[in-house]
Amino acid sequence: MQKAVHRAVRELQAGEGELTVPAVAARAGVTPSTIYRRWGTLSQLLSDVALEKLRPETAPVDTGSLKGDLILWLEQYVEEMASAPGRAMIRDILRETLPGNASQCSAFTYGQIEHIHARALDRGELPPPAELLLERVIAPLMYRILFTPAPPTAEEARRLLDEVLTYPLGEGNTDATANK
Amino acid sequence: MQKAVHRAVRELQAGEGELTVPAVAARAGVTPSTIYRRWGTLSQLLSDVALEKLRPETAPVDTGSLKGDLILWLEQYVEEMASAPGRAMIRDILRETLPGNASQCSAFTYGQIEHIHARALDRGELPPPAELLLERVIAPLMYRILFTPAPPTAEEARRLLDEVLTYPLGEGNTDATANK
Repeated sequence: MQKAVHRAVRELQAGEGELTVPAVAARAGVTPSTIYRRWGTLSQLLSDVALEKLRPETAPVDTGSLKGDLILWLEQYVEEMASAPGRAMIRDILRETLPGNASQCSAFTYGQIEHIHARALDRGELPPPAELLLERVIAPLMYRILFTPAPPTAEEARRLLDEVLTYPLGEGNTDATANK
Repeated sequence: MQKAVHRAVRELQAGEGELTVPAVAARAGVTPSTIYRRWGTLSQLLSDVALEKLRPETAPVDTGSLKGDLILWLEQYVEEMASAPGRAMIRDILRETLPGNASQCSAFTYGQIEHIHARALDRGELPPPAELLLERVIAPLMYRILFTPAPPTAEEARRLLDEVLTYPLGEGNTDATANK
Protein backbone atom coordinates (compact mmCIF):
# COMPACT_ATOMS: atom_id res chain seq x y z
CA MET A 1 0.00 0.00 0.00
CA GLN A 2 2.78 2.42 0.93
CA LYS A 3 4.52 1.83 -2.40
CA ALA A 4 1.35 2.51 -4.38
CA VAL A 5 0.66 5.72 -2.45
CA HIS A 6 4.27 6.96 -2.81
CA ARG A 7 4.12 6.19 -6.55
CA ALA A 8 0.82 8.07 -6.87
CA VAL A 9 2.37 11.13 -5.20
CA ARG A 10 5.40 11.05 -7.50
CA GLU A 11 3.18 10.71 -10.58
CA LEU A 12 0.97 13.63 -9.51
CA GLN A 13 4.09 15.73 -8.75
CA ALA A 14 5.43 14.97 -12.22
CA GLY A 15 2.14 15.70 -13.97
CA GLU A 16 -0.45 18.41 -14.04
CA GLY A 17 -2.90 16.97 -11.53
CA GLU A 18 -3.68 18.69 -8.26
CA LEU A 19 -1.82 17.16 -5.32
CA THR A 20 -4.56 16.43 -2.78
CA VAL A 21 -5.24 13.45 -0.53
CA PRO A 22 -8.35 12.43 -2.55
CA ALA A 23 -6.37 12.61 -5.81
CA VAL A 24 -3.52 10.54 -4.37
CA ALA A 25 -5.99 8.01 -2.94
CA ALA A 26 -7.87 7.63 -6.24
CA ARG A 27 -4.65 7.08 -8.18
CA ALA A 28 -3.28 4.61 -5.61
CA GLY A 29 -6.56 2.68 -5.42
CA VAL A 30 -7.10 3.27 -1.70
CA THR A 31 -9.55 5.39 0.28
CA PRO A 32 -8.59 8.86 1.56
CA SER A 33 -9.20 7.66 5.12
CA THR A 34 -6.53 4.99 4.64
CA ILE A 35 -4.05 7.75 3.83
CA TYR A 36 -5.12 9.91 6.76
CA ARG A 37 -4.83 6.90 9.10
CA ARG A 38 -1.34 6.02 7.90
CA TRP A 39 0.19 9.51 7.39
CA GLY A 40 -2.05 11.91 9.33
CA THR A 41 -1.55 14.84 6.96
CA LEU A 42 -0.64 15.50 3.33
CA SER A 43 2.47 17.34 4.61
CA GLN A 44 3.70 14.19 6.35
CA LEU A 45 3.07 12.07 3.24
CA LEU A 46 4.96 14.55 1.01
CA SER A 47 7.79 14.62 3.54
CA ASP A 48 8.02 10.80 3.53
CA VAL A 49 8.04 10.68 -0.28
CA ALA A 50 10.79 13.32 -0.44
CA LEU A 51 12.88 11.43 2.10
CA GLU A 52 12.66 8.24 0.02
CA LYS A 53 13.84 10.17 -3.05
CA LEU A 54 16.87 11.45 -1.11
CA ARG A 55 17.88 8.04 0.27
CA PRO A 56 21.31 7.28 -1.26
CA GLU A 57 21.19 4.28 -3.57
CA THR A 58 24.93 3.72 -3.81
CA ALA A 59 28.08 4.49 -1.85
CA PRO A 60 30.11 7.51 -3.03
CA VAL A 61 32.37 6.71 -6.01
CA ASP A 62 35.93 5.66 -5.13
CA THR A 63 38.22 7.96 -7.12
CA GLY A 64 41.38 6.79 -5.36
CA SER A 65 41.85 9.80 -3.07
CA LEU A 66 40.04 11.63 -0.27
CA LYS A 67 39.99 14.90 -2.15
CA GLY A 68 38.77 13.29 -5.36
CA ASP A 69 36.03 11.39 -3.53
CA LEU A 70 34.83 14.51 -1.73
CA ILE A 71 34.87 16.73 -4.81
CA LEU A 72 32.91 14.27 -6.93
CA TRP A 73 30.38 13.48 -4.21
CA LEU A 74 29.90 17.16 -3.36
CA GLU A 75 29.39 18.12 -7.02
CA GLN A 76 26.60 15.56 -7.27
CA TYR A 77 25.15 16.66 -3.91
CA VAL A 78 24.96 20.31 -4.96
CA GLU A 79 23.63 19.45 -8.41
CA GLU A 80 20.81 17.46 -6.81
CA MET A 81 20.00 19.70 -3.83
CA ALA A 82 20.31 23.11 -5.48
CA SER A 83 18.10 22.13 -8.44
CA ALA A 84 14.45 23.18 -8.39
CA PRO A 85 13.25 19.58 -7.67
CA GLY A 86 15.95 19.23 -4.99
CA ARG A 87 14.94 22.45 -3.25
CA ALA A 88 11.30 21.31 -3.37
CA MET A 89 12.29 17.95 -1.80
CA ILE A 90 14.10 19.66 1.08
CA ARG A 91 11.16 21.95 1.74
CA ASP A 92 8.81 18.95 1.62
CA ILE A 93 10.96 17.13 4.17
CA LEU A 94 10.84 20.12 6.49
CA ARG A 95 7.01 20.18 6.21
CA GLU A 96 6.79 16.95 8.20
CA THR A 97 4.33 17.07 11.07
CA LEU A 98 6.11 14.31 13.01
CA PRO A 99 9.79 14.91 13.69
CA GLY A 100 12.33 12.49 12.24
CA ASN A 101 12.53 12.97 8.49
CA ALA A 102 14.74 16.06 8.65
CA SER A 103 17.27 14.35 10.90
CA GLN A 104 17.12 11.23 8.71
CA CYS A 105 17.92 13.46 5.72
CA SER A 106 20.97 14.78 7.56
CA ALA A 107 21.91 11.24 8.59
CA PHE A 108 21.97 10.18 4.91
CA THR A 109 24.46 12.97 4.18
CA TYR A 110 26.53 12.14 7.25
CA GLY A 111 26.60 8.47 6.24
CA GLN A 112 27.93 9.25 2.78
CA ILE A 113 30.66 11.49 4.20
CA GLU A 114 31.54 8.84 6.80
CA HIS A 115 31.90 6.31 4.00
CA ILE A 116 34.43 8.56 2.25
CA HIS A 117 36.11 9.20 5.61
CA ALA A 118 36.54 5.48 6.40
CA ARG A 119 37.92 4.79 2.92
CA ALA A 120 40.45 7.61 3.35
CA LEU A 121 41.62 6.16 6.68
CA ASP A 122 42.06 2.77 4.99
CA ARG A 123 44.30 4.44 2.42
CA GLY A 124 46.39 6.01 5.19
CA GLU A 125 45.05 9.51 4.49
CA LEU A 126 44.10 11.96 7.28
CA PRO A 127 40.53 13.05 6.52
CA PRO A 128 38.82 15.88 8.39
CA PRO A 129 36.03 14.66 10.69
CA ALA A 130 32.62 14.20 9.03
CA GLU A 131 31.14 16.63 11.59
CA LEU A 132 33.45 19.38 10.33
CA LEU A 133 32.39 18.82 6.73
CA LEU A 134 28.72 18.99 7.76
CA GLU A 135 29.39 22.22 9.66
CA ARG A 136 31.65 24.01 7.18
CA VAL A 137 30.42 22.72 3.82
CA ILE A 138 26.95 21.16 3.99
CA ALA A 139 25.40 23.67 6.45
CA PRO A 140 26.38 26.80 4.44
CA LEU A 141 25.14 25.16 1.24
CA MET A 142 21.82 24.22 2.85
CA TYR A 143 21.48 27.74 4.28
CA ARG A 144 21.99 29.17 0.80
CA ILE A 145 19.48 26.73 -0.67
CA LEU A 146 16.79 27.51 1.90
CA PHE A 147 17.32 31.19 2.71
CA THR A 148 18.79 33.00 -0.28
CA PRO A 149 17.26 33.72 -3.68
CA ALA A 150 20.15 32.29 -5.72
CA PRO A 151 21.04 28.62 -5.08
CA PRO A 152 24.72 27.82 -4.51
CA THR A 153 26.94 26.76 -7.40
CA ALA A 154 29.44 23.90 -7.69
CA GLU A 155 32.23 26.52 -7.51
CA GLU A 156 31.01 27.78 -4.15
CA ALA A 157 30.79 24.22 -2.85
CA ARG A 158 34.33 23.60 -4.04
CA ARG A 159 35.55 26.80 -2.28
CA LEU A 160 33.95 25.69 1.02
CA LEU A 161 35.50 22.24 0.67
CA ASP A 162 38.93 23.68 -0.15
CA GLU A 163 38.81 25.80 3.02
CA VAL A 164 38.22 22.72 5.17
CA LEU A 165 40.90 20.69 3.41
CA THR A 166 43.43 23.56 3.57
CA TYR A 167 42.74 24.61 7.17
CA PRO A 168 41.15 21.53 8.70
CA LEU A 169 41.83 22.39 12.33
CA GLY A 170 40.36 25.42 14.01
CA GLU A 171 40.00 25.84 17.74
CA GLY A 172 37.45 23.33 18.96
CA ASN A 173 37.93 21.01 16.00
CA THR A 174 40.97 19.43 17.54
CA ASP A 175 38.80 17.43 19.88
CA ALA A 176 36.59 16.16 17.07
CA THR A 177 39.67 14.92 15.22
CA ALA A 178 41.11 13.32 18.30
CA ASN A 179 37.92 11.29 18.66
CA LYS A 180 38.35 9.67 15.26
CA MET B 1 -7.20 44.28 7.74
CA GLN B 2 -3.73 42.72 7.62
CA LYS B 3 -3.11 43.63 11.25
CA ALA B 4 -6.39 42.05 12.39
CA VAL B 5 -5.67 38.86 10.45
CA HIS B 6 -2.10 38.60 11.76
CA ARG B 7 -3.36 39.16 15.30
CA ALA B 8 -6.04 36.46 14.83
CA VAL B 9 -3.35 33.98 13.73
CA ARG B 10 -1.12 34.79 16.71
CA GLU B 11 -4.06 34.41 19.10
CA LEU B 12 -5.05 31.05 17.61
CA GLN B 13 -1.41 29.90 17.75
CA ALA B 14 -1.24 30.86 21.42
CA GLY B 15 -4.55 29.21 22.30
CA GLU B 16 -6.25 25.92 21.78
CA GLY B 17 -8.27 26.76 18.67
CA GLU B 18 -7.71 24.99 15.38
CA LEU B 19 -5.64 27.05 12.96
CA THR B 20 -7.73 27.12 9.80
CA VAL B 21 -8.60 29.88 7.35
CA PRO B 22 -12.29 29.96 8.46
CA ALA B 23 -11.21 30.20 12.13
CA VAL B 24 -8.76 33.02 11.38
CA ALA B 25 -11.37 34.84 9.30
CA ALA B 26 -14.06 34.58 12.01
CA ARG B 27 -11.71 35.90 14.67
CA ALA B 28 -10.45 38.74 12.45
CA GLY B 29 -13.95 39.72 11.36
CA VAL B 30 -13.35 39.16 7.65
CA THR B 31 -14.55 36.54 5.18
CA PRO B 32 -12.41 33.50 4.32
CA SER B 33 -12.38 34.61 0.68
CA THR B 34 -10.74 37.88 1.76
CA ILE B 35 -7.91 35.86 3.26
CA TYR B 36 -7.56 33.62 0.22
CA ARG B 37 -7.53 36.68 -2.06
CA ARG B 38 -4.81 38.42 -0.06
CA TRP B 39 -2.60 35.45 0.94
CA GLY B 40 -3.52 32.60 -1.41
CA THR B 41 -2.88 29.84 1.10
CA LEU B 42 -2.80 29.29 4.85
CA SER B 43 0.92 28.40 4.48
CA GLN B 44 1.66 31.82 3.01
CA LEU B 45 -0.28 33.58 5.78
CA LEU B 46 1.57 31.62 8.49
CA SER B 47 4.86 32.41 6.78
CA ASP B 48 4.04 36.14 6.71
CA VAL B 49 3.05 36.13 10.39
CA ALA B 50 6.28 34.32 11.35
CA LEU B 51 8.37 36.79 9.36
CA GLU B 52 6.77 39.73 11.20
CA LYS B 53 7.60 38.08 14.52
CA LEU B 54 11.25 37.73 13.47
CA ARG B 55 11.63 41.33 12.27
CA PRO B 56 14.22 42.94 14.61
CA GLU B 57 12.71 45.70 16.70
CA THR B 58 15.95 47.24 17.88
CA ALA B 59 19.59 47.42 16.82
CA PRO B 60 21.99 45.01 18.57
CA VAL B 61 23.11 46.28 21.99
CA ASP B 62 26.36 48.29 22.02
CA THR B 63 28.59 46.63 24.62
CA GLY B 64 31.67 48.67 23.68
CA SER B 65 33.48 45.97 21.68
CA LEU B 66 33.03 43.83 18.58
CA LYS B 67 33.38 40.60 20.50
CA GLY B 68 31.00 41.70 23.24
CA ASP B 69 28.41 42.86 20.71
CA LEU B 70 28.60 39.60 18.76
CA ILE B 71 28.44 37.36 21.81
CA LEU B 72 25.43 39.12 23.30
CA TRP B 73 23.56 39.31 19.99
CA LEU B 74 24.32 35.66 19.18
CA GLU B 75 23.17 34.46 22.60
CA GLN B 76 19.84 36.17 22.06
CA TYR B 77 19.63 34.85 18.47
CA VAL B 78 20.18 31.24 19.58
CA GLU B 79 17.84 31.58 22.53
CA GLU B 80 15.09 32.80 20.19
CA MET B 81 15.70 30.54 17.20
CA ALA B 82 16.47 27.27 18.99
CA SER B 83 13.40 27.51 21.24
CA ALA B 84 10.31 25.53 20.29
CA PRO B 85 8.42 28.69 19.17
CA GLY B 86 11.52 29.85 17.25
CA ARG B 87 11.88 26.55 15.41
CA ALA B 88 8.17 26.67 14.56
CA MET B 89 8.59 30.21 13.18
CA ILE B 90 11.45 29.16 10.93
CA ARG B 91 9.51 26.19 9.63
CA ASP B 92 6.49 28.45 9.04
CA ILE B 93 8.64 30.88 7.07
CA LEU B 94 9.93 28.05 4.89
CA ARG B 95 6.31 26.97 4.18
CA GLU B 96 5.76 30.09 2.10
CA THR B 97 4.24 29.43 -1.31
CA LEU B 98 5.64 32.63 -2.82
CA PRO B 99 9.40 33.08 -2.53
CA GLY B 100 10.72 36.01 -0.55
CA ASN B 101 10.09 35.46 3.14
CA ALA B 102 13.00 33.07 3.66
CA SER B 103 15.46 35.48 2.06
CA GLN B 104 13.92 38.36 4.03
CA CYS B 105 14.52 36.33 7.20
CA SER B 106 18.19 35.94 6.25
CA ALA B 107 18.35 39.65 5.37
CA PHE B 108 17.18 40.53 8.90
CA THR B 109 20.06 38.51 10.34
CA TYR B 110 22.55 39.98 7.88
CA GLY B 111 21.35 43.49 8.75
CA GLN B 112 21.92 42.97 12.46
CA ILE B 113 25.42 41.61 11.86
CA GLU B 114 26.18 44.49 9.48
CA HIS B 115 25.13 46.92 12.19
CA ILE B 116 27.63 45.37 14.61
CA HIS B 117 30.22 45.34 11.82
CA ALA B 118 29.81 49.06 11.04
CA ARG B 119 30.03 49.96 14.73
CA ALA B 120 33.24 47.94 15.07
CA LEU B 121 34.79 49.76 12.10
CA ASP B 122 33.85 53.09 13.72
CA ARG B 123 35.72 51.99 16.83
CA GLY B 124 38.78 51.14 14.73
CA GLU B 125 38.32 47.39 15.19
CA LEU B 126 38.80 44.89 12.34
CA PRO B 127 35.59 42.85 12.20
CA PRO B 128 35.25 39.73 10.04
CA PRO B 129 32.90 40.24 7.08
CA ALA B 130 29.20 39.71 7.79
CA GLU B 131 29.13 37.06 5.02
CA LEU B 132 31.71 35.00 6.92
CA LEU B 133 29.65 35.11 10.11
CA LEU B 134 26.56 33.99 8.19
CA GLU B 135 28.54 31.14 6.64
CA ARG B 136 30.49 29.94 9.67
CA VAL B 137 28.13 30.72 12.56
CA ILE B 138 24.55 31.29 11.46
CA ALA B 139 24.41 28.56 8.78
CA PRO B 140 25.65 25.74 11.09
CA LEU B 141 23.23 26.86 13.80
CA MET B 142 20.32 26.92 11.37
CA TYR B 143 21.32 23.50 10.02
CA ARG B 144 21.31 22.13 13.57
CA ILE B 145 17.93 23.75 14.26
CA LEU B 146 16.30 22.37 11.12
CA PHE B 147 18.00 19.02 10.60
CA THR B 148 19.09 17.55 13.92
CA PRO B 149 16.98 16.31 16.84
CA ALA B 150 18.77 18.39 19.51
CA PRO B 151 18.76 22.17 18.98
CA PRO B 152 22.11 23.97 19.35
CA THR B 153 23.13 25.49 22.66
CA ALA B 154 24.60 28.90 23.50
CA GLU B 155 27.96 27.14 24.11
CA GLU B 156 28.02 25.72 20.59
CA ALA B 157 27.18 29.13 19.16
CA ARG B 158 30.00 30.63 21.18
CA ARG B 159 32.43 27.96 19.91
CA LEU B 160 31.50 28.71 16.29
CA LEU B 161 31.92 32.43 16.89
CA ASP B 162 35.28 31.95 18.61
CA GLU B 163 36.55 29.99 15.59
CA VAL B 164 35.72 32.87 13.25
CA LEU B 165 37.21 35.49 15.57
CA THR B 166 40.37 33.43 16.16
CA TYR B 167 40.93 32.37 12.54
CA PRO B 168 39.01 34.96 10.55
CA LEU B 169 40.83 34.46 7.28
CA GLY B 170 40.73 31.20 5.40
CA GLU B 171 41.45 30.83 1.72
CA GLY B 172 38.72 32.59 -0.21
CA ASN B 173 37.76 34.83 2.71
CA THR B 174 40.57 37.24 1.94
CA ASP B 175 38.58 38.65 -0.96
CA ALA B 176 35.47 39.14 1.13
CA THR B 177 37.52 41.12 3.65
CA ALA B 178 39.16 43.17 0.94
CA ASN B 179 35.72 44.22 -0.28
CA LYS B 180 34.84 45.77 3.04
